[in-house]
Amino acid sequence: MAMDISVVNALTYEEFVNLFGNVVEKCPIISAAIWSHRPFKDLADIEAHIMGFIHSLPDSGKEGILRCHPDLAGRDLQSGTLTRESQEEQSQAGMTTLDSAEIQHMYRLNSKYKERFGFPFVICARLNNKADIVRQLTERLKNDRAEERERAIEEVKKICSLRLNNIVLSDIQTKL
Amino acid sequence: MAMDISVVNALTYEEFVNLFGNVVEKCPIISAAIWSHRPFKDLADIEAHIMGFIHSLPDSGKEGILRCHPDLAGRDLQSGTLTRESQEEQSQAGMTTLDSAEIQHMYRLNSKYKERFGFPFVICARLNNKADIVRQLTERLKNDRAEERERAIEEVKKICSLRLNNIVLSDIQTKL
Repeated sequence: MAMDISVVNALTYEEFVNLFGNVVEKCPIISAAIWSHRPFKDLADIEAHIMGFIHSLPDSGKEGILRCHPDLAGRDLQSGTLTRESQEEQSQAGMTTLDSAEIQHMYRLNSKYKERFGFPFVICARLNNKADIVRQLTERLKNDRAEERERAIEEVKKICSLRLNNIVLSDIQTKL
Repeated sequence: MAMDISVVNALTYEEFVNLFGNVVEKCPIISAAIWSHRPFKDLADIEAHIMGFIHSLPDSGKEGILRCHPDLAGRDLQSGTLTRESQEEQSQAGMTTLDSAEIQHMYRLNSKYKERFGFPFVICARLNNKADIVRQLTERLKNDRAEERERAIEEVKKICSLRLNNIVLSDIQTKL
């Protein structure tokens, strides 16, 4: 499935957005924007352009990215309306096999978090299990809004990096 | 269907993004971002925040917005994968009832435009009929890329304004 950077550089913007449009959840504008900067040297270069775009946004824009993310073990998961990527990630973190008490617990924590910050709790689900997620959700509730915005954007970047790796063969893999 | 601004200001970010997420085609990040600026005074205030957000983007970001738009009478229309809003707009402009020669003509013009600029031809379909669209597509092909980017973003703003009007009761309407 993974492709070499020369293949990526030959894609039209339509093909590029089809492939990379969800590396930041529900923000195809970001991959659509950075297509302007091709040719890319390598995977790290694509990632650097995405990170640069995110960092150039005002605080409201960063919060906008967060607000495009679904809750963990939330309504989209229950109703089957998660994106393919998010479904896989939440499944890997054990969010799809919670019992009803655990779902209720996540719902209460998510609601408390959203009420406090005005955006959803975002964490790289592939790098955390169920216990990690509950612990970090509880801990990060203590942050102030500016701290937590930056913390959550760091998680967006981790998610993006892993999604990119799924699409583009990294230099390291090519050399193996 | 239209709602008063006080109702809009009482929406959670999730409700707000559900309602306003597509006022700029496939860019929910924009409405998600400007939710940070509520309460809004009126419809014009929401619109001003959206326009401010768009103008704060680098050129690549503006091109990113354009690249999230479908072609007129293009593949998404033919395959039924347009967003609801875009389907209605393209239908009003007569794009859904073209004969096969007209579809081919639009395809050739769209392809030429995309090859020249690296983004799709965007025009407010509700304010233009079939003949206007073909004429403007042909004329705008003569612009340089920077001119055309700004021209197309002006069209995005018109589309956004009409979509917003469909959702929020404007002050003028309230006072009638």
